[in-house]
Amino acid sequence: MDEEKGVEQQIEDSNARFYNAFESLSIEKMEEVWKHSDDVICIHPGWEMFTSWTAIRESWVRIFENTKKIEFFITNVKVKAFEKIAIVVCLENIDSDMENKNIVRTGVTATNIFEKQNVNNNKYNNEWLMVHHHGSSVVNYMPPNVFV
Amino acid sequence: MDEEKGVEQQIEDSNARFYNAFESLSIEKMEEVWKHSDDVICIHPGWEMFTSWTAIRESWVRIFENTKKIEFFITNVKVKAFEKIAIVVCLENIDSDMENKNIVRTGVTATNIFEKQNVNNNKYNNEWLMVHHHGSSVVNYMPPNVFV
Repeated sequence: MDEEKGVEQQIEDSNARFYNAFESLSIEKMEEVWKHSDDVICIHPGWEMFTSWTAIRESWVRIFENTKKIEFFITNVKVKAFEKIAIVVCLENIDSDMENKNIVRTGVTATNIFEKQNVNNNKYNNEWLMVHHHGSSVVNYMPPNVFV
Repeated sequence: MDEEKGVEQQIEDSNARFYNAFESLSIEKMEEVWKHSDDVICIHPGWEMFTSWTAIRESWVRIFENTKKIEFFITNVKVKAFEKIAIVVCLENIDSDMENKNIVRTGVTATNIFEKQNVNNNKYNNEWLMVHHHGSSVVNYMPPNVFV
């Protein structure tokens, strides 16, 4: 088996798990995706940075409270893997329905960074956890043809 | 000398060099900051991703052509250094003057990633070159007190 491809697939799976957690609007699922430490960083579209898991968790709680439904179709995925760190860049094609509004189709460019966990005898051993998320809205967004 | 602090300082210097190149509006200076490879990525505020140095270089040429003057005051710098890769997150406090307009003060949150070059007998040996830049505008931007 191609070892390099194996690692890349693990990282793509972790990236997909983040968007599945986002779609589920479940804070418990989002908790499983992130590393719970003081130095993790999250930049939501249009916002300054949130640092530390405590602050980031709170931001997700607020976002989930204010979202009725959200669906992601992820394209343009680029993965760069190093020994302990992996960088994923992708385009989030989003259908969202915020409280009392209609479904809106938007595009967000994302930089997602995952860190490989190496704690022995720990449930997170060898797992890639999110340590950084940076999303920014695409101003002149054109949905790709495959997104129907 | 503190080895760990030495590395962090090198990375902060590379980050400062990027903003100096941006302020200089000189494509030659920007060329010295970036790794010239096909897998580098740049996401300007409001845009989709540019990949490859050829495309990114062209984007800087266009930006510089359309900018009369730009000044950066960088705050909230967070550095995370690994063996070969370093992630910098910071807030860009910007005074800019685009063609035929007045000076505008804006805020951009940035994720900048640098890769340590290890090519022996190469002028880039041990240098940290930019491989990723992601900037996103802060919607409700409040300039920090120190920015006068």
